[in-house]
Order: sequence, then structure tokens, then C-alpha cells
Amino acid sequence: MKERLILISNDDGPHALGLHSLIEVAKDFGRVVVVVSDTGQSGKSHSITMSQPLRIREVEKTEKHAFYTVNGTPVDSIKLGLDQILSETPDIVLSGINHGSNAAVSVIYSGTMGVALEAALHGIPAIGFSLLNHKPDADFTLSKIVVRKVLHSVLNNGLAPNVALNVNIPDVTPEAFKGIRVCRQTLGVWSGEFEKRIDPRAKEYFWMTGYFENHENGNKDTDEYALSQNLASIVPVKPDFTDYKSIEMIKNWNFEQ
Amino acid sequence: MKERLILISNDDGPHALGLHSLIEVAKDFGRVVVVVSDTGQSGKSHSITMSQPLRIREVEKTEKHAFYTVNGTPVDSIKLGLDQILSETPDIVLSGINHGSNAAVSVIYSGTMGVALEAALHGIPAIGFSLLNHKPDADFTLSKIVVRKVLHSVLNNGLAPNVALNVNIPDVTPEAFKGIRVCRQTLGVWSGEFEKRIDPRAKEYFWMTGYFENHENGNKDTDEYALSQNLASIVPVKPDFTDYKSIEMIKNWNFEQ
Repeated sequence: MKERLILISNDDGPHALGLHSLIEVAKDFGRVVVVVSDTGQSGKSHSITMSQPLRIREVEKTEKHAFYTVNGTPVDSIKLGLDQILSETPDIVLSGINHGSNAAVSVIYSGTMGVALEAALHGIPAIGFSLLNHKPDADFTLSKIVVRKVLHSVLNNGLAPNVALNVNIPDVTPEAFKGIRVCRQTLGVWSGEFEKRIDPRAKEYFWMTGYFENHENGNKDTDEYALSQNLASIVPVKPDFTDYKSIEMIKNWNFEQ
Repeated sequence: MKERLILISNDDGPHALGLHSLIEVAKDFGRVVVVVSDTGQSGKSHSITMSQPLRIREVEKTEKHAFYTVNGTPVDSIKLGLDQILSETPDIVLSGINHGSNAAVSVIYSGTMGVALEAALHGIPAIGFSLLNHKPDADFTLSKIVVRKVLHSVLNNGLAPNVALNVNIPDVTPEAFKGIRVCRQTLGVWSGEFEKRIDPRAKEYFWMTGYFENHENGNKDTDEYALSQNLASIVPVKPDFTDYKSIEMIKNWNFEQ
């Protein structure tokens, strides 16, 4: 039987503990090729680099494993991996494990999930993993258990075409963990987003900050609710932004004004 | 009656002809405040700036009109506009007119549509406009007619909560134009994405390029089909990436392996 090929990326750079935790588990499932941005790329969403040339650096290459860095965004990395580095289509694309939540609307800003959605566009099954702890030395013990379970299930069951999974993992011990729940994306918005400061030359500047304002009032089918119950959340996501419900409504408008 | 407040951004920078074409039409509908990135930001998607401080520059401010630039992404611009520059919520957010198509899956990579989706997250009606011509001196005559019609309709009819419109305009004269059609996002993927070159120091580098591979086989309810018929396309979009169809399927998986 042909060995599985697993392509991995992330948005926290090549040295992130979450990335190396993901690689450690993935190696038990097949041959692993890693292509990641050479610097941290949090918040880069689905951005691509159009005005600068991109370069690929081979860091490590053995029969079992290869590791490349790219001077671009997470989506640049996965595109270069699929188009230039690999000579065959991978069986699955994995992204993460992100240091910090990508639940609720954070999926939209996330480079980790940009990678997974790009793979989904290419028709490749993909999973983005995120731990609800943004510290560089976060404990990935539970995360590795969840990655193993979800990866095993996806490889056995497959995903619908052009669908990826957004998996978020609570920051608790394996003993406190309550299991895995399939959810929908929590609706809400980031509020109070900027902290104003004054620089040594008396000029204003702003740091992006803020808090997540949950608009769901505790609806139990959402990812934020599951995570609050020490459950890991899985939200299936797709790169089709169409709001089908609005199509018929707008068709009745008169555009002749 | 209180005058309407219209917040405008784009991803082609403060000097783009498409931006100034949009401002020209919008001024007939209310007070216009512009907040844009100080440089071109094509392909920046929904990215935000987390590791650099952001600054706002006031370029122009009169009773009727104000214009600011920001040293960040399109989504940074609209966030700073809503959170720091405006003291009241705008009635509508407009983005563009982009120089180049944002139809089909380009909506995912687009900074123009990042702005519109960010406004939608905030519960503000929003429209992103794009012309199918990426040249700096493209002709926006037809675009201005379409902007006027769509803006008039949205202000009269409203949009569903958290929904924005992705409006693409064919690059034809008003005489050749066939009207406006409400569509869904065309499915497909960008292929053959990189052009490899060798620099003067004999090192490889890559330019992002490629072509759109349409997976729809001419389905007539898609935006690409409408545009091919000299129609402007409107796709209602929303910042909820959940694939609801997959939820029940995945609920049947056994995660206990």
C-alpha cells in the first residue's frame, strides 16, 4: 500500500511548539512535508503576496520527512507546497497547531485557517487545529490526543468536497477534557479594538486589541459554547461565502433607478 | 432628516481612479468619510496588523467630506474608521471600486471584500464593487452607473443582518451592458500559480500568477457566467464559513479511536 502524503503548514513560523507537536503526531500517519512561513504570520487570513517575489528554502529533506520555509504568507506557503514543492497531490493538508483560539469569527482572520481553506479550494481534505492558549510554551499534551483522534477519523471517513475542519481545543488537561463536539461557527464581532498610545515624538499610534462580543446568548450548538464546556469543537467550513438565503430576496429588487 | 453617513475604503490605495469614482457617486447619497490604506493592498484578504503599531493620517476634512489614510491593511482601515475616526455608526460601508475582478473565489483573497465582510460582521450594510479591468486608467463610466443603481436599491431595501454584496462589473461600455443579475459564487480554483525565475545571483524566485479554473461547466446561476454575458453580478456574501450540510455527517463519526 502506498504511503500517505501529509502536507503541513501553520501561521506561527517554523519554530512554534504547536507546529512541532502536529508534526510529531502526523508522522505516525504517513510521510510528512512541512512548508511554512519563515516568520510569524498571525492574522494574515487568506492573504497572498502579489507584489514581491517569493523564495523557498529547503531546511531538511530525508526519505521520510521534508521541511521548507517561504518568505510569504501561510497561503503562499501552501500554494508553493502544492504547485512547486510536491510532485503529487497530498492525501491531506494539516495546519497548526495554532497558539491561540480560531473559534467563532476568528476563523476569518486566521492564517491557520487560510491554509485549510486554500487546501479545500484545491479539493484536498484539510484540518486546521488551534489550542486556546497563545503562549509560546503552551502545553500541547491534550492537543496531540485530539489531533490523533480527528486525523484518524478524517482519514477513515473523508470529507465532503471543498470542506475543511476548524478544530479548536480547550486549554485543559486530558483528565478535565470532556470530548469532541461538531458545531457551527459562533456569530459575533471583535469590539473595543484599539489601544491608543503616544510615541516619544508626541504622535498618536494604535495597537490592535479588543475582546470578542458573542452574539449567540449561549446557543449550545456553537463552537464557543462547546469550548466553554471543556469540549474540543469541530466546525466544518467551506470557501463559498454566498448567502443563499439572500439571493431570492435581492432578485425582487428593481435595479432600474 | 438626518444626512446619511457613508464610510468608504478600498485595497488599491488613496490615489486609485476606482476609489475616486466611487466617492464621486457616493457624495450624491450623503456625507462621505474615506479611510484607506496608504499603499496598494491587493490580495490582503481579511488580514489584520497585530505586530506593528498603526497610525492614522488626516488628509482632508471638511463639513461634507473627510479623507484619512492608515499604514495597515484594508481591514485595519475599516476597523480604525469604525472604532476611532467616526463617532457614530455609518449607514453603509462601500469598498472599491476595485481595479480587477473579485468574482468567483477571488472574493476570498480580496482586500476590497475583506472591508465589506468586516462591515457585515459589525452589522453594517456593505457593498464591495469591482471592475473587470485591472489597469490604473480603466474606464469607470459603466461602473459609476452600476454603483448608483445598486447603492440606491440597498439604501431603499436594506440587507439581511451580517450580509454584504460582492458586485462585479463587466469591462464594457454602457451601450453593451445587459443589466444586473443576482448570482451565487462560482466554484473553482486558481491553477498554475507560479512563474519561476532566476535572479542575477543564480537563485530561484517565484512570482504569483496563474489562471482561474472554473469548476462550474457553464452553470448559469454563477457570477462568472453573468459577467461573460455582459451582465453585472451581485453575490450576497456572509462571514459565516460553516458548512451546515457537513455537520450531521460528521456527528456520526466515532472519535474514540
